[in-house]
Formats: sequence, C-alpha cells, structure tokens
Amino acid sequence: MVESVVTRRGLLQAGGGVAAASLVAAAGPATTLVQGGGGARLAGQPLPDGAKLPATPPARRAADSVGFAIVGLGGYALNQMMPRFPQAKRAHVAAIVSGNPEKLRQVGDAYGVPADARHSYETFDRIAADKRIEAVYVVLPTGLHAEWVIRAFAAGKHVLCEKPMALSSADCERMIAAGKRAGRKLMIAYRSHFEPYNVEAMRLMRQKAVGTIRLLRTEQSYRMGPTRPSENWRTSRALAGGGPLEDYGIYGLQSALYLTGEMPESISATTFRPAGDPRFAEILAHVSSQWRFPSGAVAQLVTSYDSAGINFAEVRGTEGVLKMDPATSYSGQKMWTEGRDARAFSPGDPEVQFAGQLDHFTDAIRTGSPIRTPGEMGLRDLRLMEAIYASAERGQTVRLAPDGRMRG
Amino acid sequence: MVESVVTRRGLLQAGGGVAAASLVAAAGPATTLVQGGGGARLAGQPLPDGAKLPATPPARRAADSVGFAIVGLGGYALNQMMPRFPQAKRAHVAAIVSGNPEKLRQVGDAYGVPADARHSYETFDRIAADKRIEAVYVVLPTGLHAEWVIRAFAAGKHVLCEKPMALSSADCERMIAAGKRAGRKLMIAYRSHFEPYNVEAMRLMRQKAVGTIRLLRTEQSYRMGPTRPSENWRTSRALAGGGPLEDYGIYGLQSALYLTGEMPESISATTFRPAGDPRFAEILAHVSSQWRFPSGAVAQLVTSYDSAGINFAEVRGTEGVLKMDPATSYSGQKMWTEGRDARAFSPGDPEVQFAGQLDHFTDAIRTGSPIRTPGEMGLRDLRLMEAIYASAERGQTVRLAPDGRMRG
Repeated sequence: MVESVVTRRGLLQAGGGVAAASLVAAAGPATTLVQGGGGARLAGQPLPDGAKLPATPPARRAADSVGFAIVGLGGYALNQMMPRFPQAKRAHVAAIVSGNPEKLRQVGDAYGVPADARHSYETFDRIAADKRIEAVYVVLPTGLHAEWVIRAFAAGKHVLCEKPMALSSADCERMIAAGKRAGRKLMIAYRSHFEPYNVEAMRLMRQKAVGTIRLLRTEQSYRMGPTRPSENWRTSRALAGGGPLEDYGIYGLQSALYLTGEMPESISATTFRPAGDPRFAEILAHVSSQWRFPSGAVAQLVTSYDSAGINFAEVRGTEGVLKMDPATSYSGQKMWTEGRDARAFSPGDPEVQFAGQLDHFTDAIRTGSPIRTPGEMGLRDLRLMEAIYASAERGQTVRLAPDGRMRG
Repeated sequence: MVESVVTRRGLLQAGGGVAAASLVAAAGPATTLVQGGGGARLAGQPLPDGAKLPATPPARRAADSVGFAIVGLGGYALNQMMPRFPQAKRAHVAAIVSGNPEKLRQVGDAYGVPADARHSYETFDRIAADKRIEAVYVVLPTGLHAEWVIRAFAAGKHVLCEKPMALSSADCERMIAAGKRAGRKLMIAYRSHFEPYNVEAMRLMRQKAVGTIRLLRTEQSYRMGPTRPSENWRTSRALAGGGPLEDYGIYGLQSALYLTGEMPESISATTFRPAGDPRFAEILAHVSSQWRFPSGAVAQLVTSYDSAGINFAEVRGTEGVLKMDPATSYSGQKMWTEGRDARAFSPGDPEVQFAGQLDHFTDAIRTGSPIRTPGEMGLRDLRLMEAIYASAERGQTVRLAPDGRMRG
C-alpha cells in the first residue's frame, strides 16, 4: 500500500496508509507535499486557481472560539472551508500546515496566522505546545489521513477529519483508538449531515413521507479530464484508494444509510477500469453496488469518474418518491416529492453546511455534546466500502453483520 | 407448478406450466377459464370494463390478409390488440377462443366472427381444419402459454405469443421445438421492438449518442390495489410466475438488452415479499437486479407491484444521458438526451407498435422475412429471469454464458 511517486518534475512525493508519515518525513525538508482537497495542485503553483483569500484577516467572533490548525492547503480547504470559518459561531484559523512555503506566506498573511503558527509537515508536531491551537482539521489526500490524525491526537488536539476517514477500516480503528487514548474528540467532516436539504430529507424519511421505503438510488459521477496519477492525487491508489467511491460515491453511500435509517445485510458490487487509460492506471473508473436491507428495501448505488455528470439521490416508497438532484453539492440543491404528496422543498441555504459542521464540532468540544458524525461512522463506511470491493473482486454477494463487518 | 384454485364463487380454474391444458380439459365443459391480459376479470362479467368493441365489424384491408384466432379475450386482447387489427396491413380476426359463451357472442358479433369460428377451449383443436385461420394469437395468462402455443402448432398454425413466452426456459424450448416440428413461425409479442421511441433509442445507442454506455437503469413499478390470487391471475404463482418481473419488469429486462446490445455476463439480484399481504401470498412484491456486461457497463433493474408508479429507462454514457419516461407504455412516451447533445425526440406515434408487430408477423408469414422477436428471444429472456431468481434465492452472484444459461 505504500508507494513513492516521483514525477519528471520531481515535485510529487506520495505516501499511503500506515507509512505515509514516515514517507513524508523521509522525503526531507526539500520535498513539497501535494495538497489535497481540490484536485491536482502541483507545488510551485502557490495557490489553486480561484482560491478565495480574504482581503483582510477575519476577526474571531467569540471569546471561546476554537483555534484550528488547518493541515493541507488544497482547493477544498482554501476555497470552501477556510472562507467559512468566520461564519461559524466559534471557530477560527489559528495555524496552517503546508509543505509549500510560498503558500504558507500568502495564506498565512490573508488569514492573519502568526508566523510561528505556520508549519511545514516537519514542524507540525510543535503544535502540541501551542495553546492557541485546540483542534486540527485534516484536509489531506485520504491516504494521509490516518497518520496525520494520529499525530494530531498525539499532540493533544481534537480532530476534524475530511471524508473518507481513511483507506482501510484497520486505519480507522487505529485513529479511533488514538483519539480515545488522547481523550480528544474525533469528527468526520460529513457535511451533508449539516446541510438543510439532507437534514430535511432525513426528517421526511423518518416521517414516512413516501410511505415504506422500497428502493433508494444514488449516483455521483463526472467525467474526469485527461490526467494521470502523478498529476492528480485522486487517481493515485496510494492516496485515493479505489477512486470514485471514496471521493464522490461516499455521498451516495452515506445517503443510502441516513435516508433509510438501516444498515445493509448484503451487498453485491461490480467495478470497472478501462484498459490503457492513464486516468485509470491505478484507480477504478466505476463502482456499482446493490444493497439489501433487513426491511427488504434495496439500494442501488453508482459512482463514476468516466460518465456524464450527476449527483442525485432518489427514494421510492409505497406512497411516493423523494428526489434530490443535485443531492449533496456545495450549493444549489433541489429536492421534491412525487406521488400522493407532491411538492418542492426549500428548507434553507445549503451553504450553511460548512459553518454548521464547524459549529457542531466546536459545540462538542465546549459542551461535551455528542458528535453526529464520529469516527465510528467513518469506520462503518470504510467497512461498507471494503465489502463493496470484496464483492466485486470475488464476484459474489457479501453478507454483512449489523456493524458492517463482512460475515465469512 | 400445477394448482387448481377454486374460489368461493366457483368460477376460477387455473392451471400452470406443463399440465395446464389437461387441467382445463379435466375441468370439463362447465368450467369457465379466466381470461388473461387485463387484470382480474371474473367469468360472469362478460366484458372487461371499458372494452372497446367496434360498432360495425371491421373489413379486411388486403386480399392476402392473415386470419388470426385470438385465444383469450381479456382486457389486453379486447382493449389494445383487437381494435388495432384493422390498422394492420394484412391481419384480421378470423376466430375467437374463450371459455365464456356470452363473451364469445358479444365479441364475435362485434368483430364479425362466424359462429363456427367461435370456440371454447374444448373445441379449440378444431381450428386445425379451418383454412380461414392461419395464425393463433395467444393472449392467455403466462402459465397457460406453453400448452396453447403447442396446441396451436399441433393445429398447424403460426403463433404470435404474448410476453413473457412462458414461466420456464424448459417450456420455451418445448414451444420452439413444437414450432420447428410444425414448420410454423413463432413470434413473441415484444411490442417495444415496433414502437418508434424504443426503435429510435436502439438506433441512438448504436450510433453512440451518449458515447460509450456505462450504466443503464430501468424501473417498472406500480402499486397494486388490494387483491388476492383467486381474484387476479397476476398474483397467482401458477399463472404469473414470480410476479412483477414477468409481467412488467420484462420491459426493463428487454430494454437493458436492446439498448446496450449486450448480454450480461453476471447477475446479482434480490427479491422481497412482505409477509401477511394477500397480494403477495404467492408472488413477489419486488425484484431488483444488477447486471454486469462484458464491456464493463452495468444495468440496474427494478420492478415492483408495491411501489410508486413508474416506467422508465435511462442510459448513462461517457458523453451524455438518454432518458425515457414513460419508456414502454402503450402511448405517451417521452424521450430526451442530456449532456453534450441535449434534445427531445418525437420519432412517431407509439400506438403504431400494436399494428406494427402484426405487420412484422404477417410479413414473416407471407414473405419469409426473419422475425425480430422470435421464440429464441423469449427463451433467452426466461433464462435471464431464471438467473435473477436463482441469484436472489442463493444470495449469490450468478455467472452467465453468452446464451443466458447459468454457469455452474
């Protein structure tokens, strides 16, 4: 599971799984780590295209604001999450961690991060002594999550970790154990749990707005432009795992669980990788699965990096249909029911999901309230992904225990 | 597979599979056979609600018109097919076969069928000597197809048989063999092959209008009202088989084949039957399956008798999407593409499908042209249905040979 990819430009050093941290460490201070979150970003391009840096450093909103160290300054961190910190009730960027000194300078200046709170991956562990930092937000490529989450716990910080939690359930278990040892909180950044349309959809399903659920369909697909593993971490097996399922299909996997309120009892899956396509030299192009729930309901999930773009969820019940299209985007959600009680829903601005998950996490830190999307949820989802891959590899239906572990 | 169902009203005699004919014969002349095609129709109600009988008997359009014996005067025969015979270029109703004397009289008068060409099931075999009859159209409940198709061949007639062809691939093989022995044509009434939207969809897929096909979804579902096997042949295992897959889902099964142009190499399926529901005392409520094709494309099919109504097909490719909703209805089809080349299609009036399949069949009889939907296609589809049920029963993915037979 560990590989080192050195491109002709000599810029990319990638590690996956257990030994990611040691790989990064071994690479030495001259090595620049490619950042995660927003697609292929080579070091040397200081900021991803369209990065939104604040014109003036945002002020802290609350006296009890939680200081975060942002680990990984990729497109998602820079363009989506960091600009939303000022919208959260008590969260602020207290430190940044990047392998790119120019990025540290520009982003640090823009967010008013003190010079001694701008870290490389080599100086990361110094945050342990920095009381300005209470939490670490890990926004690295997935294959690096386990190591940096565990290092953050070792530094005594609470951790918000991007999804998927890791590339294996074994890593998830190590991460959960590290959090317990440290006595710190672990939350997986499943933003849809804080997005008004998806929250309303969960409520509608609990209320049986479509009757008894019989079928759930989800698809998260787009067609990836020409690229190769050395150019885009999302196509590197060591960093991204199987590919579209971890990165995009996980939204459908999550929807299938939180809309039905059930765990599947069996899964059959099939995957596809077109031969000779550099995009899919290491990862899969498609992952399709069919789940059976104890109630008899079925979920059919698809995710692809090589198909017409879509992000939708549909629940079909005895009395009607709920559709979400787009279902789990950053903004622009649409949701409606068909059948007996046909109507459209506008439960709120989807963009509150970003600040919403920060508020939920900082509430948990300040008040001890339970975390809705804990490490155990990330672990559960990795087990399901492992079951999907196992089914596809074996060409067999896989049976699952209620906790998502494969039976036999 | 053989059962005799006697209701409190004493009206219904049902047989399934191999021994259906003998059951009917054994029941004697006093027995009234419930007719197929249009839902529950009890004998004693002479014509199904809304049956369209012509005000004056339709004239033959062509000197070489093929005379058909219509076997089974249910709703589909009376309301859909028989009124379309005058629209066909050379097909006419020459005889009718029913167990209901009042129906024989009313329908016979309306279609100008001579008294000596109005048969009960007991006198059916006399059609052998009747030169006015060249073809038999079998519109009975599925469980009766095999026996009556074989009897029609024994009488030396060509046969048009409603879909699905039978309830087992073994019956299909017997039916094909009977046709070959008789030297007569066998066509399965897969009307979508003669329906302009579906024909255009096949053409678009061959032209790669959505690029390379990656995913196909179909669903044919509706919520069946309260009923029980003694009231509705569609809920009788002996007459309808597993239920929604044979009756409605077969349209999606067909679409998956004619839109991709491939046969699946594996199928995984799951079925559901709610406990204690008289509608599902004998049949399944839902059948979901996931197919893998040799190209890597995947089909996800659903059919249900207990879910919100829908009849749709969707093909997702590398370049775009084709949607059909409704996909295979009698009329009212809608079809459009999304993506690179988004547009709506209006290739013609769907209602020509009824006369179109008659024309295709009579062309084959008169000119020897090949049949697009032969018995071999019906057999292939039964093999796929058997694979679907086998997968669901075993809880395992089933691998298929190119002819649809299960491997191992």
